Amino acid sequence: MKLVDVCLSPDLVHLYPVEDRIVVIVDILRATSCMTTALAHGAKGIVPFAHLEACKVMKEQGLIIAAERNGEKVDDFDKGNSPFEYMEDDIKGKFIALTTTNGTQAINKSKTAKKIIIGSFLNISAVAEFLKKDTNNILIVCAGWKGKVNLEDTLFAGALIDKLGDSIEMECDAPLMAHQLYLQAKNNLWETVKQSSHAKRLSNMNIQKDIEFCLTFDEYPVVPVLKQGTFTL
Amino acid sequence: MKLVDVCLSPDLVHLYPVEDRIVVIVDILRATSCMTTALAHGAKGIVPFAHLEACKVMKEQGLIIAAERNGEKVDDFDKGNSPFEYMEDDIKGKFIALTTTNGTQAINKSKTAKKIIIGSFLNISAVAEFLKKDTNNILIVCAGWKGKVNLEDTLFAGALIDKLGDSIEMECDAPLMAHQLYLQAKNNLWETVKQSSHAKRLSNMNIQKDIEFCLTFDEYPVVPVLKQGTFTL
Repeated sequence: MKLVDVCLSPDLVHLYPVEDRIVVIVDILRATSCMTTALAHGAKGIVPFAHLEACKVMKEQGLIIAAERNGEKVDDFDKGNSPFEYMEDDIKGKFIALTTTNGTQAINKSKTAKKIIIGSFLNISAVAEFLKKDTNNILIVCAGWKGKVNLEDTLFAGALIDKLGDSIEMECDAPLMAHQLYLQAKNNLWETVKQSSHAKRLSNMNIQKDIEFCLTFDEYPVVPVLKQGTFTL
Repeated sequence: MKLVDVCLSPDLVHLYPVEDRIVVIVDILRATSCMTTALAHGAKGIVPFAHLEACKVMKEQGLIIAAERNGEKVDDFDKGNSPFEYMEDDIKGKFIALTTTNGTQAINKSKTAKKIIIGSFLNISAVAEFLKKDTNNILIVCAGWKGKVNLEDTLFAGALIDKLGDSIEMECDAPLMAHQLYLQAKNNLWETVKQSSHAKRLSNMNIQKDIEFCLTFDEYPVVPVLKQGTFTL
Protein backbone atom coordinates (compact mmCIF):
# COMPACT_ATOMS: atom_id res chain seq x y z
CA MET A 1 0.00 0.00 0.00
CA LYS A 2 1.18 3.52 -0.71
CA LEU A 3 2.65 5.47 2.18
CA VAL A 4 1.77 9.01 3.16
CA ASP A 5 3.81 11.18 5.48
CA VAL A 6 3.41 14.80 6.54
CA CYS A 7 6.28 17.24 6.98
CA LEU A 8 4.86 19.92 9.27
CA SER A 9 7.56 22.52 8.57
CA PRO A 10 9.90 23.25 5.63
CA ASP A 11 12.71 23.18 8.22
CA LEU A 12 12.11 19.42 8.61
CA VAL A 13 12.21 18.50 4.90
CA HIS A 14 15.78 17.15 5.31
CA LEU A 15 14.33 14.27 7.38
CA TYR A 16 12.27 12.89 4.50
CA PRO A 17 13.26 10.97 1.35
CA VAL A 18 11.78 13.53 -1.05
CA GLU A 19 13.70 12.05 -4.01
CA ASP A 20 11.35 9.05 -3.95
CA ARG A 21 8.15 10.97 -3.33
CA ILE A 22 5.42 12.90 -4.94
CA VAL A 23 5.36 16.06 -2.81
CA VAL A 24 2.22 18.11 -2.22
CA ILE A 25 3.11 21.67 -1.24
CA VAL A 26 0.59 23.33 1.07
CA ASP A 27 0.38 26.99 2.01
CA ILE A 28 -3.32 27.55 2.56
CA LEU A 29 -2.99 31.20 3.64
CA ARG A 30 -2.33 31.96 0.84
CA ALA A 31 0.34 30.95 -1.67
CA THR A 32 -0.98 27.59 -2.83
CA SER A 33 -4.55 28.91 -2.80
CA CYS A 34 -3.40 31.75 -5.10
CA MET A 35 -1.50 29.41 -7.41
CA THR A 36 -4.53 27.13 -7.78
CA THR A 37 -6.78 30.11 -8.42
CA ALA A 38 -4.47 31.66 -11.00
CA LEU A 39 -4.13 28.52 -13.11
CA ALA A 40 -7.86 27.82 -12.85
CA HIS A 41 -8.49 31.34 -14.17
CA GLY A 42 -6.31 30.94 -17.22
CA ALA A 43 -2.76 31.82 -16.22
CA LYS A 44 -0.44 29.77 -18.42
CA GLY A 45 2.12 28.95 -15.75
CA ILE A 46 3.59 29.98 -12.40
CA VAL A 47 7.33 30.16 -11.81
CA PRO A 48 8.15 30.03 -8.08
CA PHE A 49 11.12 31.97 -6.68
CA ALA A 50 12.60 31.82 -3.19
CA HIS A 51 14.16 35.29 -3.44
CA LEU A 52 12.61 38.69 -4.22
CA GLU A 53 15.29 39.98 -6.57
CA ALA A 54 15.34 36.87 -8.77
CA CYS A 55 11.56 37.14 -9.03
CA LYS A 56 11.54 40.85 -9.79
CA VAL A 57 13.83 40.68 -12.82
CA MET A 58 11.37 38.31 -14.53
CA LYS A 59 9.33 41.44 -15.36
CA GLU A 60 11.88 42.10 -18.10
CA GLN A 61 11.04 38.69 -19.57
CA GLY A 62 7.38 39.69 -19.88
CA LEU A 63 6.10 37.81 -16.84
CA ILE A 64 3.65 39.18 -14.33
CA ILE A 65 5.61 39.51 -11.06
CA ALA A 66 4.01 38.74 -7.71
CA ALA A 67 5.49 38.95 -4.22
CA GLU A 68 4.36 38.72 -0.62
CA ARG A 69 6.43 39.14 2.53
CA ASN A 70 5.00 39.05 6.07
CA GLY A 71 1.47 38.83 4.73
CA GLU A 72 1.66 41.95 2.54
CA LYS A 73 2.21 42.69 -1.15
CA VAL A 74 5.74 43.91 -1.83
CA ASP A 75 6.11 47.35 -3.45
CA ASP A 76 6.88 47.47 -7.17
CA PHE A 77 5.38 44.03 -7.83
CA ASP A 78 2.26 43.57 -9.95
CA LYS A 79 0.43 41.34 -7.51
CA GLY A 80 0.47 40.20 -3.89
CA ASN A 81 -0.95 37.15 -2.20
CA SER A 82 -4.74 37.53 -2.33
CA PRO A 83 -6.54 34.87 -4.39
CA PHE A 84 -8.92 37.55 -5.68
CA GLU A 85 -6.01 39.22 -7.54
CA TYR A 86 -5.62 35.98 -9.49
CA MET A 87 -9.16 35.98 -10.87
CA GLU A 88 -8.55 39.10 -12.94
CA ASP A 89 -8.42 39.15 -16.74
CA ASP A 90 -4.83 40.42 -16.88
CA ILE A 91 -3.43 36.98 -15.95
CA LYS A 92 -5.09 35.05 -18.77
CA GLY A 93 -2.49 33.37 -20.98
CA LYS A 94 0.34 34.86 -18.93
CA PHE A 95 3.19 33.42 -16.93
CA ILE A 96 3.49 34.65 -13.34
CA ALA A 97 6.74 34.83 -11.35
CA LEU A 98 5.84 34.38 -7.66
CA THR A 99 7.70 34.64 -4.36
CA THR A 100 6.11 34.40 -0.89
CA THR A 101 7.24 34.25 2.74
CA ASN A 102 6.60 30.55 3.18
CA GLY A 103 5.06 28.78 0.19
CA THR A 104 7.80 29.31 -2.35
CA GLN A 105 10.44 28.54 0.31
CA ALA A 106 8.76 25.18 0.89
CA ILE A 107 8.85 24.51 -2.86
CA ASN A 108 12.53 25.42 -2.98
CA LYS A 109 13.39 23.06 -0.10
CA SER A 110 11.48 20.22 -1.79
CA LYS A 111 13.02 20.74 -5.23
CA THR A 112 14.73 17.33 -5.37
CA ALA A 113 11.34 15.57 -5.14
CA LYS A 114 10.29 13.10 -7.85
CA LYS A 115 7.20 15.21 -8.57
CA ILE A 116 5.81 18.38 -6.99
CA ILE A 117 2.15 19.38 -7.07
CA ILE A 118 0.18 22.17 -5.39
CA GLY A 119 -2.53 21.49 -2.82
CA SER A 120 -5.18 23.76 -1.33
CA PHE A 121 -8.74 23.34 -0.12
CA LEU A 122 -9.76 24.91 -3.44
CA ASN A 123 -8.55 21.84 -5.36
CA ILE A 124 -8.42 19.15 -2.67
CA SER A 125 -10.54 16.51 -4.43
CA ALA A 126 -8.62 16.92 -7.68
CA VAL A 127 -5.36 16.53 -5.74
CA ALA A 128 -6.66 13.40 -3.99
CA GLU A 129 -7.65 11.84 -7.33
CA PHE A 130 -4.28 12.75 -8.84
CA LEU A 131 -2.47 11.10 -5.90
CA LYS A 132 -4.60 7.96 -6.12
CA LYS A 133 -3.61 7.52 -9.77
CA ASP A 134 0.07 8.27 -9.13
CA THR A 135 2.23 5.30 -8.09
CA ASN A 136 4.66 7.12 -5.78
CA ASN A 137 4.60 7.34 -2.02
CA ILE A 138 3.33 10.72 -0.86
CA LEU A 139 4.83 13.50 1.24
CA ILE A 140 2.66 16.48 2.18
CA VAL A 141 4.92 19.46 2.92
CA CYS A 142 3.28 22.19 5.00
CA ALA A 143 4.74 25.65 4.44
CA GLY A 144 4.03 26.81 7.99
CA TRP A 145 5.07 30.29 9.10
CA LYS A 146 8.80 31.07 8.95
CA GLY A 147 9.66 27.49 9.87
CA LYS A 148 7.07 27.08 12.60
CA VAL A 149 4.18 24.70 12.15
CA ASN A 150 0.76 26.19 11.53
CA LEU A 151 -2.78 25.07 12.03
CA GLU A 152 -4.35 25.66 8.61
CA ASP A 153 -1.70 23.77 6.64
CA THR A 154 -1.83 20.90 9.14
CA LEU A 155 -5.63 20.78 8.86
CA PHE A 156 -5.34 20.62 5.09
CA ALA A 157 -2.88 17.71 5.39
CA GLY A 158 -5.43 15.96 7.61
CA ALA A 159 -8.26 16.66 5.17
CA LEU A 160 -6.24 15.29 2.26
CA ILE A 161 -5.40 12.14 4.24
CA ASP A 162 -9.10 11.79 4.97
CA LYS A 163 -9.90 12.01 1.25
CA LEU A 164 -7.21 9.45 0.39
CA GLY A 165 -8.98 7.05 2.76
CA ASP A 166 -8.11 3.40 2.35
CA SER A 167 -5.73 3.98 -0.55
CA ILE A 168 -2.85 4.93 1.76
CA GLU A 169 -1.06 3.94 4.95
CA MET A 170 0.10 6.59 7.42
CA GLU A 171 3.83 6.33 7.89
CA CYS A 172 4.52 8.16 11.10
CA ASP A 173 2.89 10.27 13.80
CA ALA A 174 2.59 13.55 11.88
CA PRO A 175 -0.11 12.25 9.47
CA LEU A 176 -1.93 10.70 12.44
CA MET A 177 -1.89 14.01 14.30
CA ALA A 178 -2.96 16.01 11.24
CA HIS A 179 -5.82 13.59 10.57
CA GLN A 180 -7.01 13.70 14.19
CA LEU A 181 -6.95 17.49 14.19
CA TYR A 182 -8.92 17.60 10.95
CA LEU A 183 -11.57 15.13 12.16
CA GLN A 184 -12.06 17.29 15.24
CA ALA A 185 -12.27 20.53 13.24
CA LYS A 186 -14.03 19.53 10.04
CA ASN A 187 -17.53 20.64 10.99
CA ASN A 188 -16.16 23.93 12.18
CA LEU A 189 -13.18 24.62 9.97
CA TRP A 190 -13.56 28.37 9.85
CA GLU A 191 -14.08 28.68 13.61
CA THR A 192 -11.02 26.52 14.23
CA VAL A 193 -8.76 28.36 11.81
CA LYS A 194 -9.88 31.71 13.24
CA GLN A 195 -8.00 30.76 16.44
CA SER A 196 -4.77 30.22 14.54
CA SER A 197 -1.94 32.71 14.84
CA HIS A 198 -1.75 33.23 11.09
CA ALA A 199 -5.46 33.92 10.72
CA LYS A 200 -5.17 36.46 13.54
CA ARG A 201 -2.18 38.03 11.81
CA LEU A 202 -4.10 38.21 8.53
CA SER A 203 -7.36 39.41 10.03
CA ASN A 204 -5.45 42.41 11.38
CA MET A 205 -4.84 43.18 7.71
CA ASN A 206 -8.59 43.08 6.93
CA ILE A 207 -8.44 40.08 4.69
CA GLN A 208 -11.08 37.90 6.30
CA LYS A 209 -12.61 37.49 2.84
CA ASP A 210 -9.36 35.88 1.65
CA ILE A 211 -9.31 33.47 4.57
CA GLU A 212 -12.90 32.38 4.01
CA PHE A 213 -12.26 31.80 0.33
CA CYS A 214 -9.06 29.81 1.03
CA LEU A 215 -11.09 27.43 3.23
CA THR A 216 -13.59 26.63 0.44
CA PHE A 217 -13.50 23.02 -0.74
CA ASP A 218 -13.28 22.12 -4.41
CA GLU A 219 -13.72 25.47 -6.07
CA TYR A 220 -11.42 24.36 -8.90
CA PRO A 221 -10.89 20.85 -10.36
CA VAL A 222 -7.25 21.53 -11.30
CA VAL A 223 -3.85 20.25 -10.15
CA PRO A 224 -0.80 22.48 -10.68
CA VAL A 225 2.21 20.27 -11.47
CA LEU A 226 5.84 21.44 -11.55
CA LYS A 227 7.56 20.81 -14.91
CA GLN A 228 10.92 22.32 -15.71
CA GLY A 229 10.61 24.95 -13.03
CA THR A 230 7.07 26.05 -13.88
CA PHE A 231 3.71 25.01 -12.43
CA THR A 232 1.14 24.32 -15.14
CA LEU A 233 -2.07 22.30 -15.46
CA MET B 1 0.54 37.10 30.99
CA LYS B 2 3.22 34.46 30.57
CA LEU B 3 3.61 32.95 27.13
CA VAL B 4 3.89 29.27 26.32
CA ASP B 5 5.11 27.84 23.05
CA VAL B 6 5.72 24.27 21.93
CA CYS B 7 8.65 23.17 19.79
CA LEU B 8 7.48 19.89 18.25
CA SER B 9 10.95 18.72 17.16
CA PRO B 10 14.51 19.36 18.37
CA ASP B 11 15.28 20.24 14.73
CA LEU B 12 13.11 23.35 15.15
CA VAL B 13 14.72 24.67 18.37
CA HIS B 14 16.66 27.28 16.35
CA LEU B 15 13.34 29.06 15.67
CA TYR B 16 12.70 29.82 19.34
CA PRO B 17 14.29 32.36 21.73
CA VAL B 18 15.44 29.71 24.23
CA GLU B 19 17.81 32.18 25.93
CA ASP B 20 14.81 33.94 27.44
CA ARG B 21 12.84 30.82 28.31
CA ILE B 22 12.39 28.16 30.87
CA VAL B 23 12.51 25.03 28.73
CA VAL B 24 10.66 21.83 29.60
CA ILE B 25 12.28 18.84 27.88
CA VAL B 26 9.84 16.05 27.01
CA ASP B 27 10.69 12.52 25.88
CA ILE B 28 7.84 10.46 27.26
CA LEU B 29 9.00 7.15 25.71
CA ARG B 30 11.24 7.05 27.65
CA ALA B 31 14.14 9.34 28.56
CA THR B 32 12.39 12.01 30.63
CA SER B 33 10.20 9.36 32.28
CA CYS B 34 13.39 7.53 33.30
CA MET B 35 15.08 10.68 34.57
CA THR B 36 12.07 11.58 36.70
CA THR B 37 11.89 8.03 38.05
CA ALA B 38 15.61 7.87 38.88
CA LEU B 39 15.66 11.11 40.85
CA ALA B 40 12.43 10.19 42.64
CA HIS B 41 14.07 6.91 43.65
CA GLY B 42 17.13 8.53 45.19
CA ALA B 43 19.64 9.03 42.41
CA LYS B 44 21.71 12.08 43.31
CA GLY B 45 21.94 13.54 39.84
CA ILE B 46 21.74 12.82 36.11
CA VAL B 47 24.33 14.11 33.67
CA PRO B 48 22.99 14.12 30.09
CA PHE B 49 25.31 13.40 27.15
CA ALA B 50 24.55 13.72 23.45
CA HIS B 51 27.27 11.22 22.45
CA LEU B 52 27.86 7.62 23.48
CA GLU B 53 31.62 7.80 23.96
CA ALA B 54 31.53 10.89 26.18
CA CYS B 55 28.93 9.15 28.30
CA LYS B 56 30.80 5.87 28.51
CA VAL B 57 34.02 7.32 29.93
CA MET B 58 32.09 8.64 32.93
CA LYS B 59 32.23 5.11 34.30
CA GLU B 60 35.84 5.86 35.24
CA GLN B 61 34.58 8.78 37.32
CA GLY B 62 32.38 6.44 39.34
CA LEU B 63 29.09 7.26 37.66
CA ILE B 64 26.48 4.72 36.60
CA ILE B 65 26.42 4.83 32.80
CA ALA B 66 23.18 4.50 30.86
CA ALA B 67 22.60 4.49 27.12
CA GLU B 68 19.78 3.82 24.67
CA ARG B 69 19.91 3.90 20.89
CA ASN B 70 16.99 3.00 18.63
CA GLY B 71 14.90 1.90 21.59
CA GLU B 72 17.42 -0.58 23.00
CA LYS B 73 20.05 -0.60 25.75
CA VAL B 74 23.55 -0.17 24.36
CA ASP B 75 26.06 -2.96 25.12
CA ASP B 76 28.59 -2.32 27.88
CA PHE B 77 26.41 0.26 29.61
CA ASP B 78 24.96 -0.33 33.09
CA LYS B 79 21.43 0.66 32.22
CA GLY B 80 19.13 1.28 29.27
CA ASN B 81 15.94 3.27 28.93
CA SER B 82 13.29 1.43 30.93
CA PRO B 83 11.92 3.34 33.93
CA PHE B 84 11.88 0.10 35.92
CA GLU B 85 15.69 -0.01 35.81
CA TYR B 86 15.69 3.30 37.65
CA MET B 87 13.73 2.04 40.65
CA GLU B 88 16.51 -0.29 41.73
CA ASP B 89 18.60 0.18 44.86
CA ASP B 90 21.89 0.48 43.00
CA ILE B 91 21.08 4.05 41.89
CA LYS B 92 20.50 5.47 45.38
CA GLY B 93 22.94 8.29 46.10
CA LYS B 94 24.61 7.86 42.73
CA PHE B 95 25.16 10.07 39.75
CA ILE B 96 24.02 8.67 36.40
CA ALA B 97 25.53 9.58 33.01
CA LEU B 98 22.77 9.20 30.42
CA THR B 99 22.59 9.32 26.62
CA THR B 100 19.51 8.49 24.53
CA THR B 101 18.44 8.64 20.88
CA ASN B 102 16.23 11.69 21.28
CA GLY B 103 15.90 13.02 24.83
CA THR B 104 19.49 13.96 25.51
CA GLN B 105 19.79 15.40 21.98
CA ALA B 106 16.86 17.70 22.76
CA ILE B 107 18.60 18.79 25.98
CA ASN B 108 21.80 19.48 24.06
CA LYS B 109 20.02 21.60 21.46
CA SER B 110 18.29 23.60 24.21
CA LYS B 111 21.44 24.16 26.28
CA THR B 112 21.43 27.96 25.93
CA ALA B 113 18.04 28.17 27.69
CA LYS B 114 17.65 30.30 30.81
CA LYS B 115 16.52 27.22 32.75
CA ILE B 116 15.94 23.60 31.76
CA ILE B 117 13.62 21.22 33.59
CA ILE B 118 12.40 17.69 32.85
CA GLY B 119 8.75 16.90 32.15
CA SER B 120 6.89 13.59 31.96
CA PHE B 121 3.40 12.40 32.81
CA LEU B 122 4.97 10.95 35.98
CA ASN B 123 5.64 14.46 37.35
CA ILE B 124 3.27 16.63 35.31
CA SER B 125 1.50 18.38 38.20
CA ALA B 126 4.80 19.16 39.93
CA VAL B 127 6.11 20.61 36.66
CA ALA B 128 2.96 22.73 36.22
CA GLU B 129 3.31 24.13 39.75
CA PHE B 130 7.00 24.84 39.18
CA LEU B 131 6.18 26.72 35.96
CA LYS B 132 3.41 28.72 37.60
CA LYS B 133 5.88 29.98 40.23
CA ASP B 134 8.63 30.69 37.72
CA THR B 135 8.53 34.13 36.09
CA ASN B 136 9.91 33.19 32.67
CA ASN B 137 8.01 32.52 29.48
CA ILE B 138 7.82 28.81 28.73
CA LEU B 139 9.00 26.65 25.85
CA ILE B 140 8.07 22.96 25.82
CA VAL B 141 10.61 21.08 23.67
CA CYS B 142 9.40 17.71 22.43
CA ALA B 143 12.20 15.23 21.74
CA GLY B 144 10.29 13.45 18.95
CA TRP B 145 11.93 10.59 17.06
CA LYS B 146 15.14 11.42 15.18
CA GLY B 147 13.87 14.90 14.39
CA LYS B 148 10.35 13.89 13.43
CA VAL B 149 7.41 14.94 15.59
CA ASN B 150 5.76 12.29 17.70
CA LEU B 151 2.36 11.82 19.23
CA GLU B 152 3.17 11.04 22.86
CA ASP B 153 5.44 14.06 23.40
CA THR B 154 2.89 16.32 21.69
CA LEU B 155 0.10 14.92 23.89
CA PHE B 156 2.20 15.64 26.98
CA ALA B 157 2.73 19.23 25.78
CA GLY B 158 -1.04 19.53 25.42
CA ALA B 159 -1.64 18.03 28.86
CA LEU B 160 0.82 20.44 30.46
CA ILE B 161 -0.82 23.40 28.71
CA ASP B 162 -4.14 22.14 30.03
CA LYS B 163 -2.76 22.05 33.58
CA LEU B 164 -1.30 25.55 33.23
CA GLY B 165 -4.83 26.75 32.43
CA ASP B 166 -5.44 30.47 32.75
CA SER B 167 -1.90 31.23 33.92
CA ILE B 168 -0.54 31.25 30.37
CA GLU B 169 -1.22 32.49 26.86
CA MET B 170 -0.54 30.28 23.86
CA GLU B 171 1.93 31.97 21.57
CA CYS B 172 1.55 30.22 18.27
CA ASP B 173 -0.23 27.32 16.56
CA ALA B 174 1.85 24.44 17.96
CA PRO B 175 0.52 24.81 21.54
CA LEU B 176 -3.01 25.15 20.15
CA MET B 177 -2.60 21.94 18.15
CA ALA B 178 -1.02 20.05 21.06
CA HIS B 179 -3.82 21.17 23.37
CA GLN B 180 -6.54 20.17 20.90
CA LEU B 181 -4.97 16.75 20.42
CA TYR B 182 -4.74 16.24 24.18
CA LEU B 183 -8.36 17.27 24.80
CA GLN B 184 -9.45 14.76 22.18
CA ALA B 185 -7.29 11.95 23.60
CA LYS B 186 -7.36 12.52 27.34
CA ASN B 187 -10.05 9.99 28.19
CA ASN B 188 -8.30 7.42 26.07
CA LEU B 189 -4.62 8.25 26.35
CA TRP B 190 -3.34 4.70 26.20
CA GLU B 191 -5.54 3.78 23.24
CA THR B 192 -4.42 6.92 21.40
CA VAL B 193 -0.72 6.45 22.08
CA LYS B 194 -0.94 2.79 21.04
CA GLN B 195 -1.57 4.02 17.47
CA SER B 196 1.65 6.05 17.49
CA SER B 197 4.64 4.91 15.49
CA HIS B 198 6.92 4.96 18.51
CA ALA B 199 4.59 2.86 20.66
CA LYS B 200 4.39 0.36 17.80
CA ARG B 201 8.17 0.35 17.55
CA LEU B 202 8.49 -0.22 21.29
CA SER B 203 5.74 -2.80 21.55
CA ASN B 204 7.68 -4.90 19.05
CA MET B 205 10.33 -4.93 21.78
CA ASN B 206 7.87 -6.25 24.38
CA ILE B 207 7.91 -3.21 26.56
CA GLN B 208 4.22 -2.49 26.82
CA LYS B 209 4.67 -2.32 30.60
CA ASP B 210 7.10 0.58 30.13
CA ILE B 211 4.65 2.44 27.91
CA GLU B 212 1.77 2.05 30.35
CA PHE B 213 3.93 3.26 33.22
CA CYS B 214 5.18 6.27 31.22
CA LEU B 215 1.55 7.35 30.68
CA THR B 216 0.78 7.39 34.42
CA PHE B 217 -0.01 10.84 35.80
CA ASP B 218 1.68 12.17 38.94
CA GLU B 219 3.57 9.15 40.18
CA TYR B 220 6.32 11.43 41.53
CA PRO B 221 6.04 15.00 42.89
CA VAL B 222 9.56 15.97 41.76
CA VAL B 223 11.02 18.37 39.20
CA PRO B 224 14.49 17.65 37.80
CA VAL B 225 16.30 20.96 37.20
CA LEU B 226 19.56 21.38 35.26
CA LYS B 227 22.32 23.02 37.30
CA GLN B 228 25.90 23.13 36.08
CA GLY B 229 25.35 20.32 33.65
CA THR B 230 23.54 17.97 36.05
CA PHE B 231 19.84 17.39 36.67
CA THR B 232 19.00 17.28 40.37
CA LEU B 233 15.92 17.87 42.54
